[in-house]
Parts: sequence; C-alpha cells; structure tokens
Amino acid sequence: MEGVATRAGVHRATVYRRWRDVGGLLVDVIDAAGEINWQPPDTGSLRGDLTALNQEIQESLVAQPSFAVALMAASFHSEQAARAQTQLWADRYDQCEILVERAIERGDLPAQHTDARSLLIAATAPLYHQLVLLRAEPDPQLPSRAAQAAVLAAAAGAFAVRREESG
Amino acid sequence: MEGVATRAGVHRATVYRRWRDVGGLLVDVIDAAGEINWQPPDTGSLRGDLTALNQEIQESLVAQPSFAVALMAASFHSEQAARAQTQLWADRYDQCEILVERAIERGDLPAQHTDARSLLIAATAPLYHQLVLLRAEPDPQLPSRAAQAAVLAAAAGAFAVRREESG
Repeated sequence: MEGVATRAGVHRATVYRRWRDVGGLLVDVIDAAGEINWQPPDTGSLRGDLTALNQEIQESLVAQPSFAVALMAASFHSEQAARAQTQLWADRYDQCEILVERAIERGDLPAQHTDARSLLIAATAPLYHQLVLLRAEPDPQLPSRAAQAAVLAAAAGAFAVRREESG
Repeated sequence: MEGVATRAGVHRATVYRRWRDVGGLLVDVIDAAGEINWQPPDTGSLRGDLTALNQEIQESLVAQPSFAVALMAASFHSEQAARAQTQLWADRYDQCEILVERAIERGDLPAQHTDARSLLIAATAPLYHQLVLLRAEPDPQLPSRAAQAAVLAAAAGAFAVRREESG
C-alpha cells in the first residue's frame, strides 16, 4: 500500500480510503487485468500446452514483486482477496479446459470423459507447491516435468470421470 | 495471539513479549510437535500409503482452527514462520521417501531411480491447491484420486531421474 501511495504521489491515507486494504486494491487490479485478452497456449500438443502454461505460472510466481503471491498472501486475511483469488483461478481453469478438449479431439486422451479441471490442477499444482509453499528455487525443468506427469497420468486414465459418480 | 492469551489467562502483551509474532509462536508449536513420533503410513501399497497420507493432509487442512493453514498464512509475512514451514515440510517429505522405497522393493515402480520427492509432491500438491488456494469444499474422493494419479504417472516413468541430469 505504501508503494502504491509513493508511486501515485499521494498520502498513504488516500490509498487506504480508496481501497481499505490490500485485498480491495488487488480486486481492482484483477478487474483491470480481466480486460486484457488472455489466451490459453496452443502449441499443438497437450504436453506443450501445459508446459507453456506452467512456464507462465512459474514466471508469475518468481516475478518481483509477484502479483500472484501478493494475492495469495492477502487471501489469508482478506475475505475480499480470497473471493477474488478463487474467482480468478476458476476463470483461468475454465479458459484452459480447451487444452483438454483439443487433446481429446486429437485422440491423445483415452476417454471422452476426462475431467479437465482435475487434469489441469494436477499439472499446475506442483508449481505453486514448490515455489510458494516450499519456497524452492525455480527449476527450469519443472514446468515440463509437471506437465508430462499430468499427461502420463491422464493417458493412464487417472482423470476419467467414473460412471458411478456421474449418474 | 489473542486466543492464546485468553486461554493462558495472561495479557496479550505477555504473549507478544514471549513470541514477538504469530510466526514465533508457531515455531515453538512445531518444535513441540516434533517430539511426537510421527510415522508415515504403511498400508502395503503405494496407492494406499499416499491415500492415507492425503487423508491426513486433508484433515489437517479442514480442521478448525487449522495449524497448517495458520502456518501458511504466517509464512507470507513472517520470515521465521516461512523458514519453519519449509523445514517442517522438508522433514515430512524426507520421512515419506520410504513409501517410494518400499514400492520399488515390491517391484511396483519401474525404475530404481524414481525421484521420490517429485512423486510425493505430485501426490499431495492437489490437496493444498484445492483446499487452501482454490478454497474448494473437501472432496472425500480427492485423497485417493490424487494418490492414484501420482501412482499412474510414476508407473509410466514420469518421475524417473534422467541420466543426463544425474551425471
């Protein structure tokens, strides 16, 4: 908040009056970012797409300062930030379901009923885990490895929707 | 901190004087917990072991209050808490490497050089991601599904140590 006030050339109190807390500020940043026309990667293979997505995630997490990490930090003490983060990620995962749909169309995945969200989370969760929670050094191999692990699991039917649950 | 002071029947300032911040308090809680002789699960199969581990993680994350979530929250603003969390998880993952060693001994994993840490993170990361970051409702199927996805990926060689990297 102090940094924002300094950059804007206003008193800190002005920033707090406008946004109340860092959660409120981040929500407006997200709204502004939502206008940017983000497109999911389209490399021609599921592994390539997930690797590209993971590279983007890795960059966003190691950036200084990192908006993604600031939002996570704020989500633990600001209900507004927590809701904004949940929504942001839900939107992003929705947008990425096309990666899985394309893979099914290409015949790269075994079943029509692959649960796209579970596959996407399996591919991306290790990045957040390693970089944010375990505070590991960024590993240039991690984006492709985590992508490959999810693709292999998917090919083996790990994310197939079970019949007894869909009926 | 307020809750601790109330339970102990002392003034809040006493708690702050003793531990400085919530990070310091949590570090002492971790030290105390370290004396508890935690043992990794031993169910007879890698999938069973990882499912049991994930069930334990899920319980620790949905507990009210959750020590694990409090530590994560504190890790974003307390360097002391961040280091304690990193150490706690490093220790826990070290202790769990035996699950992978046992699976290799049983012949359930293809290579001798499966990277145990990567496999363990693949199995457990979706739990933290879903419950803490996406704030999803606990899914009773998630512990076994995330375990199974990691086992299938491992069986397909996803976590094999590459020769060009080990030499």
